[in-house]
Amino acid sequence: MTTAWTMARRAARLNPSTIREILKLTELPGIVSLAGGLPAADGFPVDAMRAATERVLREQPREALQYAASEGYGPLREWVAGELAAQGLTVDAAQVLITTGSQQGLDLVGKVLIDPDSRVAVESPTYLGALQAFAPFEPRFVAVEGDDEGPDPAALTAARGARFLYLLPNFQNPSGRCLSAARRAALADAATAIGLPVVEDNPYGELWFDAPPPPPISARLGDGAVYLGSFSKVLAPGLRLGYVVAPKALYPKLLQAKQAADLHTPGFNQRIVYEVVRDGFLHTHVPAIRARYRTQRDAMRAALARHLPSGCRFNAPAGGMFFWVTLPQGLDATALLPRAVEAGVAYVPGAPFFVGDAEAAHANTLRLSFVTVPAPLIEQGVRALGGVLAEALAAQEATQ
Amino acid sequence: MTTAWTMARRAARLNPSTIREILKLTELPGIVSLAGGLPAADGFPVDAMRAATERVLREQPREALQYAASEGYGPLREWVAGELAAQGLTVDAAQVLITTGSQQGLDLVGKVLIDPDSRVAVESPTYLGALQAFAPFEPRFVAVEGDDEGPDPAALTAARGARFLYLLPNFQNPSGRCLSAARRAALADAATAIGLPVVEDNPYGELWFDAPPPPPISARLGDGAVYLGSFSKVLAPGLRLGYVVAPKALYPKLLQAKQAADLHTPGFNQRIVYEVVRDGFLHTHVPAIRARYRTQRDAMRAALARHLPSGCRFNAPAGGMFFWVTLPQGLDATALLPRAVEAGVAYVPGAPFFVGDAEAAHANTLRLSFVTVPAPLIEQGVRALGGVLAEALAAQEATQ
Repeated sequence: MTTAWTMARRAARLNPSTIREILKLTELPGIVSLAGGLPAADGFPVDAMRAATERVLREQPREALQYAASEGYGPLREWVAGELAAQGLTVDAAQVLITTGSQQGLDLVGKVLIDPDSRVAVESPTYLGALQAFAPFEPRFVAVEGDDEGPDPAALTAARGARFLYLLPNFQNPSGRCLSAARRAALADAATAIGLPVVEDNPYGELWFDAPPPPPISARLGDGAVYLGSFSKVLAPGLRLGYVVAPKALYPKLLQAKQAADLHTPGFNQRIVYEVVRDGFLHTHVPAIRARYRTQRDAMRAALARHLPSGCRFNAPAGGMFFWVTLPQGLDATALLPRAVEAGVAYVPGAPFFVGDAEAAHANTLRLSFVTVPAPLIEQGVRALGGVLAEALAAQEATQ
Repeated sequence: MTTAWTMARRAARLNPSTIREILKLTELPGIVSLAGGLPAADGFPVDAMRAATERVLREQPREALQYAASEGYGPLREWVAGELAAQGLTVDAAQVLITTGSQQGLDLVGKVLIDPDSRVAVESPTYLGALQAFAPFEPRFVAVEGDDEGPDPAALTAARGARFLYLLPNFQNPSGRCLSAARRAALADAATAIGLPVVEDNPYGELWFDAPPPPPISARLGDGAVYLGSFSKVLAPGLRLGYVVAPKALYPKLLQAKQAADLHTPGFNQRIVYEVVRDGFLHTHVPAIRARYRTQRDAMRAALARHLPSGCRFNAPAGGMFFWVTLPQGLDATALLPRAVEAGVAYVPGAPFFVGDAEAAHANTLRLSFVTVPAPLIEQGVRALGGVLAEALAAQEATQ
């Protein structure tokens, strides 16, 4: 008899990551990739990492290499609580759960909060990785419509009864938008009015170029919010280190889900990162990242203004890693991608960042990252993209 | 309005880890803990780790600190395939998925294969961490009865139609038992006859004292098996590094579940471990662990023979980390634990390793680890345990 593997129903909701498939494509030599959300690798603090690792292996090797607490390394949890206080979010270190990247935080939130056919409210567009983390738990996604300022507080009523609203308020992936303080306040009021919990994700908040973003919306929500943070963008993603801050009502279940998922995040990595950050290293390191990314943001803004054919629109993000481009109606960013790659440039089509009907309706959007490649390559890539788009527009006009 | 967090139904199946709660208790000073499955920390290869880390941060810092492939680091996957071949299991490196500890492998297997109310067959007793990983996906557990040689092949018919049989064939946690080659063959035949897939977990196989265990049962099952391995016991658990080997029919879904769960296992850790193991380091390191653990196994065997009151039974494991003790009927290992801790020794009660009715029926079992503390403390701890048990037996007799 042949062995019969039977998949769980939820496995149908697991799908290849569009972005990761595109990233493979764009690793070909000669392609300027504006697709990935990869931090610039030559900005990684290798010397600080080396010194910290050396110290951990000299002073606390056995503790660093042994099994450890599922909650995370105590001093690192304290450090996180202190940092958040500086950003306007007062939490107790006991509410901090260290995770294996903030992607794991999303998975744990999904596991603990989402039942099949329960509703989860998301921005439109929203972060694809969150959709991928939540989808296996089989929710129905509800899109909250909005504008360049963020989700529309009045539109929140559509989310009444949802398990939570997932928000990425600072320099959102993919749209680049940052919610104003007023919008945060209005959204917090609207969510509180209908008893809607919020899951706030903040991987990019430290990457501001001109002024820090307003305090987290979680600061206005008390026990009505879960907050997720990450070391991936301010230190290095290859360490896989993030955290979840949860109210007392949720923390124990998230912790048990964490134990079931991987027992604990590598103590080795936690202790190294704590050694790196404990004495204020980020206060000099992060401004250097900001300066670099600001220059590249400016280069991309100039290149887009120069090379995009008329009819294309783009934002100018005040932080983070992404430009969001809207092409003239009728152009399909997914269909154009092979031609762009042929022309030497890659991007991520925007449609997968939308849920439901909105996905097809936004076939004419795409996301560009300005952090991975330096300014001259940004210019080269955007010029190539402009050429592909101009050609596609000309072909479109010819058939009309 | 108060914010209403609604938990997913599966959250009711998430529970505090009995063992982790006990471990907290036993971290009190003066307690000889025979409870934890913690490898002896002074056997961690700190020098090799230091050299490997130094090399990785010198030669490939950017690659090690950047986002990486969800499948894992290519050379490490190749290395795993080579090691498994040496143990009699021929697999392609493309079948190897690197995980954040083998606990994550169990979580991914559960996510992809278990529907609510589907059946999952387990040994009796079985590994508690596997029950905790699978439980949130809401299976009904089916216990496969057996003897000191392992599960009874004839009893497998009770598991017909289950999503899979979970087996830990080498020096099982908690029972210490190791399946003979004949039993593996009979189980493989019985599983194949009813089309029952097998998930084989092998964290302890390298920790043999006299002779290596027989080849993995997966070697007899082809595409009918998933195999899980770990670096926690041969190197260090604080790195959180394990792997899943999956047939082609399952690999893509496990990979997508991995992406959703934490994107990828830290590339930093994968590259360090590869640098440690690539040139045969384990061929000298693991024999040293074996020698140390064998000595401690012998010490515990002698201490148990000396100090356990008559009526207690124990095995003598040929590898791994655990003795399994059966107390006279009427003694309850969970109820006795506080008295044992008072007397200066801790263990893990055996009941939680059973499912269904068998849990209460095995209240008189307990697990002892011989790897964390050295021989003199093993003697001291077992003597204290013997005293507590003798006292409990005397009290029992007095009331009869």
